[in-house]
Amino acid sequence: MEIVTTVKEVRDRVKAWKKEGKQVGLVPTMGYLHEGHKSLIDKAVAENDAVVVSVFVNPMQFGPTEDLASYPRDLEADAKLCEAAGASLIFHPEPEEMYKDGFCSFVDMNGLTNALCGLSRPVHFRGVCTVVNKLFNIVQPDKAYFGEKDAQQLAVIKRMVTDLNMDIEIVGCPIIREADGLAKSSRNTYLSPESRKQAVILSKAIFLGKKMVEDGERDAAKIKKAMTDLINTMPLATIDYVEIVDGMTMQSIDTLKGDILCAIAVNIGGEARLIDNFHYTV
Amino acid sequence: MEIVTTVKEVRDRVKAWKKEGKQVGLVPTMGYLHEGHKSLIDKAVAENDAVVVSVFVNPMQFGPTEDLASYPRDLEADAKLCEAAGASLIFHPEPEEMYKDGFCSFVDMNGLTNALCGLSRPVHFRGVCTVVNKLFNIVQPDKAYFGEKDAQQLAVIKRMVTDLNMDIEIVGCPIIREADGLAKSSRNTYLSPESRKQAVILSKAIFLGKKMVEDGERDAAKIKKAMTDLINTMPLATIDYVEIVDGMTMQSIDTLKGDILCAIAVNIGGEARLIDNFHYTV
Repeated sequence: MEIVTTVKEVRDRVKAWKKEGKQVGLVPTMGYLHEGHKSLIDKAVAENDAVVVSVFVNPMQFGPTEDLASYPRDLEADAKLCEAAGASLIFHPEPEEMYKDGFCSFVDMNGLTNALCGLSRPVHFRGVCTVVNKLFNIVQPDKAYFGEKDAQQLAVIKRMVTDLNMDIEIVGCPIIREADGLAKSSRNTYLSPESRKQAVILSKAIFLGKKMVEDGERDAAKIKKAMTDLINTMPLATIDYVEIVDGMTMQSIDTLKGDILCAIAVNIGGEARLIDNFHYTV
Repeated sequence: MEIVTTVKEVRDRVKAWKKEGKQVGLVPTMGYLHEGHKSLIDKAVAENDAVVVSVFVNPMQFGPTEDLASYPRDLEADAKLCEAAGASLIFHPEPEEMYKDGFCSFVDMNGLTNALCGLSRPVHFRGVCTVVNKLFNIVQPDKAYFGEKDAQQLAVIKRMVTDLNMDIEIVGCPIIREADGLAKSSRNTYLSPESRKQAVILSKAIFLGKKMVEDGERDAAKIKKAMTDLINTMPLATIDYVEIVDGMTMQSIDTLKGDILCAIAVNIGGEARLIDNFHYTV
């Protein structure tokens, strides 16, 4: 498995694969790979002849007060995980390779991004759309793999691909959890031992909400109240949002109907802003 | 030569060509084709094995008070011109095929578009970038052809392709003029006989400006003043802008240096807003 840093190298490798008739998968990541990423890479390796994993902490998707500088990085460990999983190539560009002199274009959307994480992270999805659009154009994969933990991101990327007629299949992969239920995230590493303990409240709230929906509750307010009350039992937890939205449009709903997304964002101990969610079709 | 209306049909045709190893050219147009468009198609036919001409009056690039409804259309004549020029395929989608239910994505930029035509047409370049991005993804051409008459559009599209790593070569083609000098444009058809006569002042001003630069004038203000005074001799002419900018960034300059663009937009008799320009490297 090779690690390359330039767009040209990726293009050359992918063009050679395509000449051989190989199907190409892409797993875009910000690195510091965990079992969640591994599940994406495993699926990509199973479904394609060659797999590119991009490892790029994208400055454009971080707000000015966010954790760009402190975001964890460990390329050596990432490379080991990718190689063991059977990936063909890591694309690990410097920011200067992705955003050259005079760069001023962006991809964004009018819907979907003005809810949930888009409210507390106003520049986030513009950065995500732009970098993912670039990665899609660089790699030109047949399929690209994203985790369902970032539910809004997945919806936004599916929307972008549909709207801009990108000829790529987007594959969503289930959330991978720690033994106690906490969704795997590179940001879990920010948590002190006490915060780590209390962070389990996110998945507990998600499981509670899901149980209520499965038991027939259709009143969004009741479900959100129960989840909110549960999260607030943890003194270190500060809720960003507890929301139930339409799974396609991300717009808030009062009565559960069709494909719904229940999503939460909670700051734990001022150390990490964590997210979790479940989808359900009524 | 075939005319197709769906994205799927274009994709199928292009995929078949690519399997045969054919190089594909794209000429994006809004139809009502004239000699200017024909020069693009001719060049595309000469440089590629198969050429797609898109004919689509893109609602997204027209402002609410602009000429979307009255923009001239004549698909039959367009088809004859394309066939005679040797194009392989016309893509003529309905707006509903390009902008489906829930469409909300867009491509735009922070620079280049906040000058010249971007000032008087604030939504224009977002619409241009978005539709051209879509057409590029639908056709996946090796090369795409644009007229230099729309100088800012050409600069914007080159910027988008560079910034978003689109693997497409953008080819600019020289302005084609009527016998009296007026740049060919589908919008010339809006002009009454008297306005048509006075419209020649655009090219006269461009030729004057170019002569001054060639003769060594480097003071942008002096060139703009001479051009403005000349245009103002025509009672039906109302200047939108007479500008000299950096040819890459579209930012106004005082002293000519490097690659410069001198561009004008003039409304003639309230009937048509026309543009013209010249590039020069000092």
